[in-house]
Amino acid sequence: MALDVADVGSFYIGGKTIELKGLPKRELVLVPGSPPVMVDPNGEFYAGQMYVQYVRLAGPKARYPLLMWHGGGLTGVTFETKPDGKPGWQSYFLKQGHDTYVSDAVERGRSGWSRYPEIYKSEPFFRTKREAWDLFRIGPADGYASSAEGRKAFANQKFPVAAFDAFAMQFVPRWAGNEPLIQAAYDELVKRTCPCVLLAHSQSAGFAFGVALKYPELIKGLVLIEPGGAPDPDKVDLSNLKDVPTLMVWGDHLDAVPFWAKVVPAVDKARSAIAAAGGKVEWIDLPKRNIVGNSHMIMMDANSDEVAGLVQDWFQRNGLMR
Amino acid sequence: MALDVADVGSFYIGGKTIELKGLPKRELVLVPGSPPVMVDPNGEFYAGQMYVQYVRLAGPKARYPLLMWHGGGLTGVTFETKPDGKPGWQSYFLKQGHDTYVSDAVERGRSGWSRYPEIYKSEPFFRTKREAWDLFRIGPADGYASSAEGRKAFANQKFPVAAFDAFAMQFVPRWAGNEPLIQAAYDELVKRTCPCVLLAHSQSAGFAFGVALKYPELIKGLVLIEPGGAPDPDKVDLSNLKDVPTLMVWGDHLDAVPFWAKVVPAVDKARSAIAAAGGKVEWIDLPKRNIVGNSHMIMMDANSDEVAGLVQDWFQRNGLMR
Repeated sequence: MALDVADVGSFYIGGKTIELKGLPKRELVLVPGSPPVMVDPNGEFYAGQMYVQYVRLAGPKARYPLLMWHGGGLTGVTFETKPDGKPGWQSYFLKQGHDTYVSDAVERGRSGWSRYPEIYKSEPFFRTKREAWDLFRIGPADGYASSAEGRKAFANQKFPVAAFDAFAMQFVPRWAGNEPLIQAAYDELVKRTCPCVLLAHSQSAGFAFGVALKYPELIKGLVLIEPGGAPDPDKVDLSNLKDVPTLMVWGDHLDAVPFWAKVVPAVDKARSAIAAAGGKVEWIDLPKRNIVGNSHMIMMDANSDEVAGLVQDWFQRNGLMR
Repeated sequence: MALDVADVGSFYIGGKTIELKGLPKRELVLVPGSPPVMVDPNGEFYAGQMYVQYVRLAGPKARYPLLMWHGGGLTGVTFETKPDGKPGWQSYFLKQGHDTYVSDAVERGRSGWSRYPEIYKSEPFFRTKREAWDLFRIGPADGYASSAEGRKAFANQKFPVAAFDAFAMQFVPRWAGNEPLIQAAYDELVKRTCPCVLLAHSQSAGFAFGVALKYPELIKGLVLIEPGGAPDPDKVDLSNLKDVPTLMVWGDHLDAVPFWAKVVPAVDKARSAIAAAGGKVEWIDLPKRNIVGNSHMIMMDANSDEVAGLVQDWFQRNGLMR
């Protein structure tokens, strides 16, 4: 890639110290073969923090840093090297001259996670490979098989199907009910790092809407890659997003999965409301541009650079490059 | 820092797919306020994988890549920006011309973790701030207080005590009994990435000994920063480490904590055995060089560059730079 890098680093943001009291001590074998020791789970712990890693360029060409937010059950690795070993969107946008800030949402990856039910309120749950195959639209649900050879993807699939197992190595557990914690940390990140451009994938689009509604003046561009939902304009006033240039990008086979068949019209309703308020919202339906076969993980697909190019072009057209 | 970077990227290594069967479905409220949905925990999951992130330079000055392994209850963030916001050892060694590979051990950070007791055999445990204060030798155990103002660190402390709460944001849960999984992934990493130089902190020194004993020809230099233990030479033949140049570095106040007071002689016994077999092992006791007040987290201490400079000097003297 050959980049003139000013700075590679990371920080944590958000969260607070929580004290646990009155929990029983328990025996734990710390070293296999050794006698158990008593472990006291009581004490003070940091909870609700978020990890953010940045690469800043010596001479950025973008006007604002690019914040990249991943989807549910995943981490910032979404934007790094693709499961097939090829460069991902972080590399692409660095090459185009953007400082990148890739974070792991609260409860995931390097953000760590907290004891339940004392701090988090529910048990974690884990995404199966079959669910990812279906929900991320790699192929029809009945096309999944344990063996890589036995799997049947969509015929025009752009996801690197041979690297699906490598992709499954990126999955992390998630909790239901932590949304307020996650939103709070993203809000803190935006207050610290922005004005910025926000690129949010899947679940994180909800957090992106949340923060943009609170601090529209800090979000100079909002790119939603296959947003997993949007606020209902009948319940939430979206008019203060009218000055936030917004781009929504969709892949292929959305009608093949009931979840997406429901999400797309819900997001389109939000888009209409923002546009009706005078906002500038662009909607890219890739198959309508004859770019076919994209999965939910567009940034990992074989044509990821091509789609990133459409996003970069939108940055140019919206005055977000120097 | 201003670096000519060839490539920033990441990969996963190790682990395998595990199938869970026969577990009961359970109700889960996925969206607050919505009715619960049935979640099926059965299926196939990837387990035992390890995340590795690299920064490769356009013109490295070191002969081999530098692998940086963190300690227990932590992640690769150990080597990134310090809790006080200043550049850490990853930056230092990049500036000196090393390609860096910073990993998160299995079960931690971006490596993800697996359901228990079905895949991992025990419950996780979480390090309290007080335990870290004591074990990492920030101050005497009774010097810890909930409020930052109330804490009493060692008088000559080099750890940035005002950033102790920021450090606590880096803590992640751990499990007892996953050592074989962790070792297996480190072994795979060494087979893929080396010949290399390995810099291991605290708990990971045990894994570093493990891999170096198996593949001594792949480890061109072994730097152990406050190793949390070492194999007992009465039980394990350490003689095939004789051709692996090794450096061990120790901070201050080791006698103040019973754990460290026991560890140091155990590691020294291993050092003696390797030296007796003809090995080249250097032992740096920082206070004996009038470098005082270093905590267990030497790479986060105020004089982290000074200590890194001793390591870099050792690299030079051992022919590890071009």
